[in-house]
Amino acid sequence: MADAMSTLTPPSAQARTAAAERLAGLATPAGALGRLGELGVWLAAVQGQCPPLVPQNVRAVIFAGDHGVAAHGVSAYPAAVTPAMVRTFAAGRAGVSALAHTHDVHVRVLDIAVDDDLEGIDPDVQRFKIRRSSEPLHLTDALTMAETQAALEAGARIAAEEIAAGAQLLISGDMGIGNTTPATALIAMSLGMPAVEVTGRGTGIDDAAWEHKKDLIQQGLDRVNARADQDGELRPVEILAALGGADLAAAVGFMVAAARAGVPVLLDGVIAVACAVMADRIEPGAAAWFAAGHRSTEPAQSLALDKLGLEPLLDLGMRLGEGSGAVAAVPVVRSAAALLRDVALLSELAI
Amino acid sequence: MADAMSTLTPPSAQARTAAAERLAGLATPAGALGRLGELGVWLAAVQGQCPPLVPQNVRAVIFAGDHGVAAHGVSAYPAAVTPAMVRTFAAGRAGVSALAHTHDVHVRVLDIAVDDDLEGIDPDVQRFKIRRSSEPLHLTDALTMAETQAALEAGARIAAEEIAAGAQLLISGDMGIGNTTPATALIAMSLGMPAVEVTGRGTGIDDAAWEHKKDLIQQGLDRVNARADQDGELRPVEILAALGGADLAAAVGFMVAAARAGVPVLLDGVIAVACAVMADRIEPGAAAWFAAGHRSTEPAQSLALDKLGLEPLLDLGMRLGEGSGAVAAVPVVRSAAALLRDVALLSELAI
Repeated sequence: MADAMSTLTPPSAQARTAAAERLAGLATPAGALGRLGELGVWLAAVQGQCPPLVPQNVRAVIFAGDHGVAAHGVSAYPAAVTPAMVRTFAAGRAGVSALAHTHDVHVRVLDIAVDDDLEGIDPDVQRFKIRRSSEPLHLTDALTMAETQAALEAGARIAAEEIAAGAQLLISGDMGIGNTTPATALIAMSLGMPAVEVTGRGTGIDDAAWEHKKDLIQQGLDRVNARADQDGELRPVEILAALGGADLAAAVGFMVAAARAGVPVLLDGVIAVACAVMADRIEPGAAAWFAAGHRSTEPAQSLALDKLGLEPLLDLGMRLGEGSGAVAAVPVVRSAAALLRDVALLSELAI
Repeated sequence: MADAMSTLTPPSAQARTAAAERLAGLATPAGALGRLGELGVWLAAVQGQCPPLVPQNVRAVIFAGDHGVAAHGVSAYPAAVTPAMVRTFAAGRAGVSALAHTHDVHVRVLDIAVDDDLEGIDPDVQRFKIRRSSEPLHLTDALTMAETQAALEAGARIAAEEIAAGAQLLISGDMGIGNTTPATALIAMSLGMPAVEVTGRGTGIDDAAWEHKKDLIQQGLDRVNARADQDGELRPVEILAALGGADLAAAVGFMVAAARAGVPVLLDGVIAVACAVMADRIEPGAAAWFAAGHRSTEPAQSLALDKLGLEPLLDLGMRLGEGSGAVAAVPVVRSAAALLRDVALLSELAI
């Protein structure tokens, strides 16, 4: 996938221009819609039409996976929470389930790399399973290149299925104890920043565990940088293998495929944004198809959004993961589309 | 109304406690829901039940009115826009209409003080009309005390009608060229701040008009302060008569009545927040029934929200009025209720 010839086309400049003109002609004071005006223009561009449709068929996929590094004290929770939460998603009782039900968003949970057999679960949940967990990224590569490629391709097939189901907007969610560690490592590596400047507390670790988490992430960065010094700069897919995980690689493949297919993606927290950074490195320009749903409390997420040139729609101090922040932001996207589509034009009013 | 014996009861402490306990027991990391967790607890308290219902019957009332001060160069738009926009609301083609349709919010527009006969409009729109426009507040009192009382009582009757229609959450919207001037004056007077520190650009005036607007607001403040020096401190209703307008007074009456009836109100921008400040002065404790929908670009709105102890849910740079920021925030309120209501408890998971 990563080596394939790029098939990316940018969002429609023509629709963007038409939308900016329409926005200026609405029966509202200039600029009065604030960010919703800009978001409406982006929607027109990614949909290639003005006015944009209000996206009704919004589809979230939760990429679940465990991480070898989680056994080394980087999380407040044991890895057994991951399969328990996969069952909670399947039962529709998780945070993202409640939000998705409220805002009419379709949710699908997939076991990409959960360190459990999940006996008795709907077999569809495991159709794209790559492996159990990953190797501890501070000691060795998290994945082989073959596993990474397989995960990227799985993500692309998952995106294709969701698009075939009519997705007008896609969301990538995550579940996996320890997953802020690989996500933070990928962002630190991509931004060229040390672990100490980007690492957050994930689900809520204490000061000692936080220092330890920074150390492990820095070990991973040092390990990869040492290889780069010896062999030359690593390709993005090699970085993903070294510091990522199969669930993250699948989400990256999902985002690259969405951008190539011209379907917009609404980003969630630090996991999704790390994957977006990698997707944009694998397929330069992919980020033009992404919008940021919410600002998480993880410093790496804000830093990576700045790099991508994206500003979040919501800032509610959420740090739940699961795609929850993006699902919570779906109504904001619909608001923006509805305003640009349905508000009268000044030229229609008799003043 | 203002002199009536208080009938306010605070939101339920029992439901608040139960909700805080439920929040702590959800199958999410502690604090991971951020502001949505706190908002869910507030919803439980104002509904008097835990878990809270997801508010489906949300009703917005747009209080339309003109302002005498608008003839003195404080707005970028002529007063003829007010009746044109009332017709646009009635036709369902305004900004708030598009948002309300998208998020299933009921909208009702009422001509409280539009400086136009609005010939041919549905007579229900004018059932609560108090007068045409108001007196220029920098020169003289905007309203008589009798008009102010009539507007407060009209607002209370309107709230009663909306509550009888099943409102689970109320929104007060506004339309009126020049209305940020009385709203800013009311906030400045309540906060004891000079006009220069609180006055914004409304719909987008240039620097010269902005300076002029500050001057007129300060003239109004000086006029009222001079009276207070002579006759003693003015009652909140007297300040509303001096610096408000019939549309604002009706919105104040609406909020006081909602709080007394135990129905929560989601606040919009500077007009609604100015009315909320006055409602809380007329009926101390009313603000416990209010939440802030969005942060407007008007400095007076943020300063007044601080005074009320409220933090907005959205911060999207909107300055449209109409109740639009509050309607855009309705899905956030629904998200909060759904999370506290529908997410599994940790005790239900088998980990």
